[in-house]
Amino acid sequence: MEITVMSNILEKNEEIAAELNALFSKQGILAINLLGSPGCGKTSLVEQTIRLLKNEFSIAIIEGDLYTSKDADRIAACGVPVVQINTHGGCHLDAAMVKTAIAKLDLEQLDILIVENVGNLVCPAEFAVGEHAKVVILSVTEGEDKPLKYPAVFQQSAAIIINKMDLLPYTDFALDAATGDIRELNPDAALLNVSCKNASGLTDWLEWLKGQVLLRRKQKRD
Amino acid sequence: MEITVMSNILEKNEEIAAELNALFSKQGILAINLLGSPGCGKTSLVEQTIRLLKNEFSIAIIEGDLYTSKDADRIAACGVPVVQINTHGGCHLDAAMVKTAIAKLDLEQLDILIVENVGNLVCPAEFAVGEHAKVVILSVTEGEDKPLKYPAVFQQSAAIIINKMDLLPYTDFALDAATGDIRELNPDAALLNVSCKNASGLTDWLEWLKGQVLLRRKQKRD
Repeated sequence: MEITVMSNILEKNEEIAAELNALFSKQGILAINLLGSPGCGKTSLVEQTIRLLKNEFSIAIIEGDLYTSKDADRIAACGVPVVQINTHGGCHLDAAMVKTAIAKLDLEQLDILIVENVGNLVCPAEFAVGEHAKVVILSVTEGEDKPLKYPAVFQQSAAIIINKMDLLPYTDFALDAATGDIRELNPDAALLNVSCKNASGLTDWLEWLKGQVLLRRKQKRD
Repeated sequence: MEITVMSNILEKNEEIAAELNALFSKQGILAINLLGSPGCGKTSLVEQTIRLLKNEFSIAIIEGDLYTSKDADRIAACGVPVVQINTHGGCHLDAAMVKTAIAKLDLEQLDILIVENVGNLVCPAEFAVGEHAKVVILSVTEGEDKPLKYPAVFQQSAAIIINKMDLLPYTDFALDAATGDIRELNPDAALLNVSCKNASGLTDWLEWLKGQVLLRRKQKRD
């Protein structure tokens, strides 16, 4: 019975996610599902992205957290629309939550919607939220063994960001080993080394993101 | 139906966890459920604990991971018995998994059993594995906002360890704020600042752990 219920939940989620995905595509909005452990730097990447792109693109953010509006407060301070979802203990966002959240956003003229998921390398991998692409962040302070221990999110992501490169000299993180393991799991993903703190490597991230926005616009026209 | 199924799963887990807890208590074994985000330093704390206590106490470890035996390999190198549980995508250990794992351990003469859970600040909080105490690790690189965002594990833990203190000077981690938030959530827990890398602060951790072992021995005698 467990398995049936779980499969029903996943099926229903896929249905709503497909509906959202079609809506975003139709409007020419790039939707990103941003994943990673607690504290890997998801909100910091969103802040930097807004800072560097908000004059060029219209951006909105959905923040997922179990409790508090700490992340939404940080994003609101950046001057873009943000909706906080509190899961009240739930370990991932789902498509229905995002569907409710977008009702509070003006989708007209929007270029980029970033959904920052709950900090969790496991459960969010199973629940699409309507995204065109998943992006996962691994911070060097987490250790190079994480991609092989939590492969699903790394396999599913179109871009994989290694963050906190500013801390690399103070850790034992084996960058070559991590890069090799990630390449084994996902040869096609964009692989970007950044520091959200000192802004190094962010140009490559912005280039990747802009490429995705242009792809959405092109597909909307076609 | 969902809710009923989930409640049945949790109830069944509580049942097996209580059975394991009684078994550990009867044998005078201290059972610890070690929790924290991916890369917070759970395995490093276990390694240091073994290194510093293995001549004084008999220790065994159960390692929980989605995939790989990386952590069990590290522990085996420390010269104590270890059993790896692979959850194959599952986001937490449960009592039934631990029950299967302890069949591979010699419980006679054992003083301390540490169950290192899957790296996840959310889901493991709901599933007891027979422990006498939960211990959660927060690393300073994760940010001081995590206790309030993931309160359950912090509320449930008898000891809360702030790890990677060696990296504190290179981060923006507000130690006072984190300590204040943790104290709000859980005034009674032991709160310990350590660096598993340079071994600072570990004396306090060992003292706490030894106190728990003696408590188990006393309760076994009584």
